[in-house]
Amino acid sequence: MRTKINLISTKEMDTILTVTGWIKSVRTSKKFSFLALNDGSCFNSLQIVIDTNMPKYEETISLLSTGASVKITGKIVQSPGKEQSIELMAQDITVIGKCDPETYPLQKKRHSFEFLREIAHLRPRTNTFGAIARVRNALSFATHQFFQEKGFLYIHTPIITAADCEGAGEMFKVTTLDLENPPKTDKNNSEETFNVTDYSKDFFEKPTYLTVSGQLEGEAYACALSNIYTFGPTFRAENSNTSRHLAEFWMIEPEMAFADLNDNMDYAEEYIKYCLKYLLEKCPQDMKFFNRYIKPGLIDKLNNVINSPFERLEYTKAIEILKNSGKKFEYKIKWGSDLQSEHERYLTEEHFKKPVILYNYPKEIKAFYMRQNDDGKTVAAMDVLVEGVGEIIGGSQREERLNVLEEKMDQTRLDKENYWWYLELRKYGSVPHAGFGLGFERLIQFATGMENIRDVIPFPRYPGHCDF
Amino acid sequence: MRTKINLISTKEMDTILTVTGWIKSVRTSKKFSFLALNDGSCFNSLQIVIDTNMPKYEETISLLSTGASVKITGKIVQSPGKEQSIELMAQDITVIGKCDPETYPLQKKRHSFEFLREIAHLRPRTNTFGAIARVRNALSFATHQFFQEKGFLYIHTPIITAADCEGAGEMFKVTTLDLENPPKTDKNNSEETFNVTDYSKDFFEKPTYLTVSGQLEGEAYACALSNIYTFGPTFRAENSNTSRHLAEFWMIEPEMAFADLNDNMDYAEEYIKYCLKYLLEKCPQDMKFFNRYIKPGLIDKLNNVINSPFERLEYTKAIEILKNSGKKFEYKIKWGSDLQSEHERYLTEEHFKKPVILYNYPKEIKAFYMRQNDDGKTVAAMDVLVEGVGEIIGGSQREERLNVLEEKMDQTRLDKENYWWYLELRKYGSVPHAGFGLGFERLIQFATGMENIRDVIPFPRYPGHCDF
Repeated sequence: MRTKINLISTKEMDTILTVTGWIKSVRTSKKFSFLALNDGSCFNSLQIVIDTNMPKYEETISLLSTGASVKITGKIVQSPGKEQSIELMAQDITVIGKCDPETYPLQKKRHSFEFLREIAHLRPRTNTFGAIARVRNALSFATHQFFQEKGFLYIHTPIITAADCEGAGEMFKVTTLDLENPPKTDKNNSEETFNVTDYSKDFFEKPTYLTVSGQLEGEAYACALSNIYTFGPTFRAENSNTSRHLAEFWMIEPEMAFADLNDNMDYAEEYIKYCLKYLLEKCPQDMKFFNRYIKPGLIDKLNNVINSPFERLEYTKAIEILKNSGKKFEYKIKWGSDLQSEHERYLTEEHFKKPVILYNYPKEIKAFYMRQNDDGKTVAAMDVLVEGVGEIIGGSQREERLNVLEEKMDQTRLDKENYWWYLELRKYGSVPHAGFGLGFERLIQFATGMENIRDVIPFPRYPGHCDF
Repeated sequence: MRTKINLISTKEMDTILTVTGWIKSVRTSKKFSFLALNDGSCFNSLQIVIDTNMPKYEETISLLSTGASVKITGKIVQSPGKEQSIELMAQDITVIGKCDPETYPLQKKRHSFEFLREIAHLRPRTNTFGAIARVRNALSFATHQFFQEKGFLYIHTPIITAADCEGAGEMFKVTTLDLENPPKTDKNNSEETFNVTDYSKDFFEKPTYLTVSGQLEGEAYACALSNIYTFGPTFRAENSNTSRHLAEFWMIEPEMAFADLNDNMDYAEEYIKYCLKYLLEKCPQDMKFFNRYIKPGLIDKLNNVINSPFERLEYTKAIEILKNSGKKFEYKIKWGSDLQSEHERYLTEEHFKKPVILYNYPKEIKAFYMRQNDDGKTVAAMDVLVEGVGEIIGGSQREERLNVLEEKMDQTRLDKENYWWYLELRKYGSVPHAGFGLGFERLIQFATGMENIRDVIPFPRYPGHCDF
């Protein structure tokens, strides 16, 4: 039996335990050698003390280098050191897997995040990326627990799709056709003859893509089961090489029937607070690390978010505030334009100094499915803006009135035939409903202060990068 | 404030509540009309009683048809009926969304599962598919709770990949190239000139695919953090039009460091039992339905699985049992061949009458990464077989010895260059580790008795079918 390091406390004093893990560092002195042993169960390593008089000491210590895996049995004793209250006095050491110090890329020194991205298979062994994995895990489970407690059903919406949720956006194609020799078909119409790719030979017998959102399918389930949420991968084939975009990322999309925009804002705010609270409780060591080395003041910031109500502000009022701010912005502020990152940051970071929920956006800049307000100019959309990240949540009440939705689709030139089933949700027992999407990596960035989105997902995908 | 139907019990007697939902059926008599109202929160509908003397009765009742959405306020009273202990005496009824009885496809009659697949956006409104959604949700959360309680970290492994985990299998291609006109490049080599698709123009600048498994990446994280699990979509582009295969399905893949095949079997067994126990506790109404209408004896079967130890049996012994069974099989039994469905079913359904874990398979029929046993003939693989479904889990201890793994890759003609990072896990602090994969839809089939895998996922993808 082996004991996980996170479970060892002063309660285990004087007991004999076996631990396994990887060596983070080795320090030797005359009478003792010290290992920092980590098994990933928590941020802190366990200090292992090895008496130089131990049998076969020389033979063993020569194999104990950073990165090596070991199994160690010994007694938990009080530590005289300042860094830890307990340590393990080794009685028996088995080296399981050696690690050549000459070639091992993770020596005990600082490595740039750029370098670590190139060894994404080893980076979870570092302090930062081990902590990110635990934070990501905690926020994932907090998500499930929050929605389960509220009676939401977790739904798996499809990844491969023939539809384009946003009616725009670049999508990845999914195919089994031979890219070297796509089958062709002669299509005759009255005008001329085309020679085009024959999708009837493709796996799904039509063009298919990777989903950009599970919302539309989520709506179908909400319109049967009231409250549902999705948590799955989504994709954007945009060629944006920035620290804010990934080609593959995870999204959480709750959808609530018999709910309006206010309910939507309530859920969004409660959900974010719940996640952050859970995280601070479950990962104190990891959060202390981020607070100290990645973003000073982080924990205070998160506590402030947890404890204060989010500012809720109509888009129109936000425009006024920005106009009256006396601040010089690169992009002009104009009612009807989308807010730029600099505007969003001013509102949340400088003006309100807390998360802001903007709502009732001009209809022209929002998606076709958002519910039209009575003013004829705005839709019941909302975005949650937070410090450092900007938009972390986007959502809306959905247009539940069949005729209004159809009109909107005609205006935006969407082919209603492709959305026959989506329209039927408005035909048979339609209900007011609302939902939002949270970019999971953005939440992790917000919660950890990590600047590059490529560093908060295990194996990031972005233009030119699909390694591992 | 509205109350979810699953939260209403005899404790709410005589209180005034508001409920929302969709009408399942309407029955009228001289003095009263009765609605069955369902909101998806549980299987059972709430009986609504409407006094025909209610103001505007005629006007209201004419709109109350199957499928319509309503908001109803009334008093919870004791029900004289046998079917339910309480009912709601309506005081106020608002029809939110009408539902035309002439065209609504879900009238109160039995529909075939085949028909319902064609209206997958509406099928969650039926008894069967509402129940499946709740069961799927319960098994998902049970999965997370089980692994979280055990200290496993949930890892998101990539969906788009350049590698092929199994070293075989048909994969979907992912591309942003124009399928009508893929860019070509002239490649010169000494022999001749090729004209081939120029992947340097593709999004990732090389051919990429949808993942068939997150295992390899999961191993990288287990070799840093000890215990991890994945839960995400996986893909097979096999052209199999059967009730057992989907092109897109969800898989759970735990991976444990410092663990061997026995640990692996222990976790697999405990995990399945945990899920089924959780399900029977959380979804009693749904399970009663499956037990009654889909698979008689289901609940007894599941309890039997929960309460008895799985049979653990070496492949070699299984071959003996099959040979001595006196049973006529279509496929010949021979050491070294993969077992067919008929063999697996005989073992679990007839011979042992409980789940069976087969282990130590001939190395020729298993994947390259499985750990070679000392006999030189078998590998430390295991499959869990259950009644009705067959293989529900496949797993193995992984080959952690660099030289043995490299030799195996040479034999099976895998390009070691493509696996450089996977091999490095064996070079730097290698550890014995093991893991398995559970096909989530198979678990749902096993737990519900549903025969066709297309009916246990919200929007199934299979050859020629990518609707919704």
